[in-house]
Amino acid sequence: MTAAALMTAGAARLARAADDSTAIPGKRPMILHNDRPEDLETPVRYFDSWLTPVDAFFVRQHIPRPATIDPAAYRLTVNGMVSKPLQLTLADLQKLPQATVPATIECTGNGRGFYTPKVPGIQWGRGAIGNAEWSGPRIADILRAAGASSSAAFLETDGADVGVASTPDFVRSLPMKKAMHPATILALKMNGQPIPDIHGFPARLIVPGWDGTSSVKWVIRLSAAAEANKGFFMNPGYRYPKYALPPGTPARPAELEVIEGMPVKSSITAPEDQSKLALGAITVRGFAWAGEQAIERVEVSTDGGSRWHDAQLSSPKLPFAWRLWHLDWRPSDPGYYTILSRATDSSGRVQPIVAVWNPSGYLWNAIDRVGVTVEKA
Amino acid sequence: MTAAALMTAGAARLARAADDSTAIPGKRPMILHNDRPEDLETPVRYFDSWLTPVDAFFVRQHIPRPATIDPAAYRLTVNGMVSKPLQLTLADLQKLPQATVPATIECTGNGRGFYTPKVPGIQWGRGAIGNAEWSGPRIADILRAAGASSSAAFLETDGADVGVASTPDFVRSLPMKKAMHPATILALKMNGQPIPDIHGFPARLIVPGWDGTSSVKWVIRLSAAAEANKGFFMNPGYRYPKYALPPGTPARPAELEVIEGMPVKSSITAPEDQSKLALGAITVRGFAWAGEQAIERVEVSTDGGSRWHDAQLSSPKLPFAWRLWHLDWRPSDPGYYTILSRATDSSGRVQPIVAVWNPSGYLWNAIDRVGVTVEKA
Repeated sequence: MTAAALMTAGAARLARAADDSTAIPGKRPMILHNDRPEDLETPVRYFDSWLTPVDAFFVRQHIPRPATIDPAAYRLTVNGMVSKPLQLTLADLQKLPQATVPATIECTGNGRGFYTPKVPGIQWGRGAIGNAEWSGPRIADILRAAGASSSAAFLETDGADVGVASTPDFVRSLPMKKAMHPATILALKMNGQPIPDIHGFPARLIVPGWDGTSSVKWVIRLSAAAEANKGFFMNPGYRYPKYALPPGTPARPAELEVIEGMPVKSSITAPEDQSKLALGAITVRGFAWAGEQAIERVEVSTDGGSRWHDAQLSSPKLPFAWRLWHLDWRPSDPGYYTILSRATDSSGRVQPIVAVWNPSGYLWNAIDRVGVTVEKA
Repeated sequence: MTAAALMTAGAARLARAADDSTAIPGKRPMILHNDRPEDLETPVRYFDSWLTPVDAFFVRQHIPRPATIDPAAYRLTVNGMVSKPLQLTLADLQKLPQATVPATIECTGNGRGFYTPKVPGIQWGRGAIGNAEWSGPRIADILRAAGASSSAAFLETDGADVGVASTPDFVRSLPMKKAMHPATILALKMNGQPIPDIHGFPARLIVPGWDGTSSVKWVIRLSAAAEANKGFFMNPGYRYPKYALPPGTPARPAELEVIEGMPVKSSITAPEDQSKLALGAITVRGFAWAGEQAIERVEVSTDGGSRWHDAQLSSPKLPFAWRLWHLDWRPSDPGYYTILSRATDSSGRVQPIVAVWNPSGYLWNAIDRVGVTVEKA
């Protein structure tokens, strides 16, 4: 490791150091964190379009994939606090009104590798995130068809993946208010095509604006319930401190809360960290998103954060989906430059300079930074 | 070292780790980096007044102090490109019109300990800086008395300290334009009293707004010259890269320039980094200065840099001297908070988030940060 690399905290270089030449079927070469189950990070050079192609979309699996589901045999059980329990076929789901929702999905631990002190878990850099167009029936329509009780406060969702040995089953609960939101769907398609097995075929919950873990894959059961599931993936998994403790401190379980909407953030995708560029026109690019909010503004600094310039933002301006941004920059001198990006959302949230350290390394959203050397042309 | 301390880069904890119980005559207990020659850092808790008391003022010596100068025997030689070379006694200097200049003096390496990767040299934290009222004759008056040539471009200043063995003599040169500035003086007094020996008795050059090295102690010779001195303390000492190179890269000597005016910066002096506080009213305090500019604004963030609040600034608003600032803060919840301060000067310069790394670790001026734990009262 060069001394230079020490300056920009961990994950970017870890990401580069990881092997991105190992192809997984259906995927371009990705940054491979694990191959069984697959944990694949998107190299930032693939982030050049508003919709992330399926073959470049990151993958986070907790448990090895279930056996490929036969679409003819697939059944979705809808039960719990409902007046008409259902067993729906894929054809039944396809007959319901279909909604299309552009939504960014981000691993809760995206950017974990940037935290100091280090925390256990996959050392994701910038690439455990992607933006896709998801299509399928609304959860609200499915629950209405089943006659869900108005006193049910939570929707419990079970994926077909089953824990091996001591690994717990993957079950998540969602407050009914979010489940009934018209943008919350049971996606059957991703970017217009059937969802690939690796992303949850045939049906994946999409909870726009919330952490990726909420968007359960291979959904086989939806249950209306009075209370949230108490299993591992709700507690202690995917919880965040209500009150931050000093970096390096263990969590206080009683003060951990379930993660819901995601924070405001931006990432720089070009130029790459520690790259060398010729003096001349340089385009700084990236993406920004803000959970349930829309991105209002992205500013870029090329002098380490003294002066800021408004980046050009892609349209449309939507909640749930990211916006791409770019800024044309023409440095007048050679030298080493620290480039930063800072996003502001429609509710006025602004990216912080320092992300809140937490024992699981969740929700990294500090102002992003890369260092580049500009050389005489 | 606790894991928590890892998050806030080096110097604060180095400063705390250093021994601040060793008293040097005439000084309160200071952070001792060296005792011969004396390199003493001011603990931030002493920074509670606009004028830093002499007994709390930092000390940076390059060479062991010269033998104490007998005021009756003291002579200042004024020579070089002058029509009337002079030998001035202390009484002669006292008879010239006396100017009083409040000026902040800062070691060029103040904050060096915050750089990553580490650089050699004293690992100063926040305390190699102080603000005092300096009084004495203007250099312009002394040079006029000696009939300095209008074609002299530099003033060379020699201190009575002499290098031991291979250590070079301490000689600095100043462009004549700065030397002739009405605020550039040969100080005989510091905060109204004769300058203590440790700070340059009986006469110290004060070059307001420039790096501390310019303010030569124990001045025994002023020479008008056509060119700048080429000795060690002008080259390679106290030079800064014209073009920054990637962190960890050696300097390119041809691209190093003499340091002149200092950048804009602020430091947080209370609460102390990694301290614990009771929930309730908390005052965040510090100082800010901007070399030859005045401080226009200081903003404080208590949420890691998302939102900023204007701090109250002390008057007067002057070039060369710092302003103290404070902000009353009442956190509503317990937890760990990252507090930041960001200064803006009268010329519109704003502190950066990332300071420019350089091989000598000079001019650290990134937005300052401390982490504090607020506990239930």
